[in-house]
Amino acid sequence: MAASRLSDAQIATKIASLPDWKYLAPAEDHDGQLDAQFVFRTFVEAFAFMTAIAIEAEKRNHHPEWSNVYNRVSVTLTTHDSGGVTELDIDLAARAGELAKSFR
Amino acid sequence: MAASRLSDAQIATKIASLPDWKYLAPAEDHDGQLDAQFVFRTFVEAFAFMTAIAIEAEKRNHHPEWSNVYNRVSVTLTTHDSGGVTELDIDLAARAGELAKSFR
Amino acid sequence: MAASRLSDAQIATKIASLPDWKYLAPAEDHDGQLDAQFVFRTFVEAFAFMTAIAIEAEKRNHHPEWSNVYNRVSVTLTTHDSGGVTELDIDLAARAGELAKSFR
Amino acid sequence: MAASRLSDAQIATKIASLPDWKYLAPAEDHDGQLDAQFVFRTFVEAFAFMTAIAIEAEKRNHHPEWSNVYNRVSVTLTTHDSGGVTELDIDLAARAGELAKSFR
Repeated sequence: MAASRLSDAQIATKIASLPDWKYLAPAEDHDGQLDAQFVFRTFVEAFAFMTAIAIEAEKRNHHPEWSNVYNRVSVTLTTHDSGGVTELDIDLAARAGELAKSFR
Repeated sequence: MAASRLSDAQIATKIASLPDWKYLAPAEDHDGQLDAQFVFRTFVEAFAFMTAIAIEAEKRNHHPEWSNVYNRVSVTLTTHDSGGVTELDIDLAARAGELAKSFR
Repeated sequence: MAASRLSDAQIATKIASLPDWKYLAPAEDHDGQLDAQFVFRTFVEAFAFMTAIAIEAEKRNHHPEWSNVYNRVSVTLTTHDSGGVTELDIDLAARAGELAKSFR
Repeated sequence: MAASRLSDAQIATKIASLPDWKYLAPAEDHDGQLDAQFVFRTFVEAFAFMTAIAIEAEKRNHHPEWSNVYNRVSVTLTTHDSGGVTELDIDLAARAGELAKSFR
């Protein structure tokens, strides 16, 4: 069973406490999604962060769309089966923010 | 000192033995670059491959621009300081192909 | 609730199809456990394998006792809460064998 | 050419600024070595740290002997070719301490 898609108002409330993340409302080319860009000291810290996120993602069976260039990691979270942002995204976004805070 | 940019003919010869990779000639929005997309059984193999590449990249002080969605890893290699594709890119491309072959 | 400890006979049957693993019966200084040593081409493949196992372990909330020296990875699996080897160990052992086979 | 083995006095001076590490003088069963045990919040942070160290180790072509159990990582550094502790060990020890400080 897919997680329930959150409303724009619910998302706004929840990401208020997640300073790294912004919400992109649905548009022609994508469903609603959460976006963040994390910047680290070097590539080494950036990839260590990615490893932590990879573990957390597989544990939740919920994976990011993400990219990396040197010390920057861009992450997009959405729940395709639900057509937008769900609690799964909020939860992984919160954990990513927590980890990034440590690793920077 | 930056590595020397290879000519289109040199690149064509070199990537002939690298089946995963294609060369994109310079265009308005990018220098010449090598592109590959690797597909694995699951996210776990995909991320293990990324870890191997991360180690190889840092060792060479030459890092990819790359993205991942579930079991797919897209990699772009170019040498910004040289304005195109150099031996650094060919070498990392060859190692990536070798690793991907094992991990699939 | 802890997983059920398997009997020596059950373990023998199950690891018959897991060629990398051997069973150590309980002794004064340890409960029953599964042991394997994996050897890879280089450190890079060894650590990529460890990353895959790390993801699989956290997903199961069941973690190995393991060590690494260059291209060798030694893994011990046991379920402390159950006082010996359980299905959790067999399952992670099987996945490790499968991954090692790919990465070598 | 192997790096030069440091004297006990040199090692003592150098690790004075590396609070995580202690020096074990040569004994019957081992050369001189540096030892540390790092403890993290969870397995996820512990393995992210290991990934960072793996990258740094391969970059230096100088690898640790190390083990992990859940949130604990034990690391031993020595330079076998030189029969003891060298600048290679001091350098990797310093980087490990720096990374552990971030990741805890």
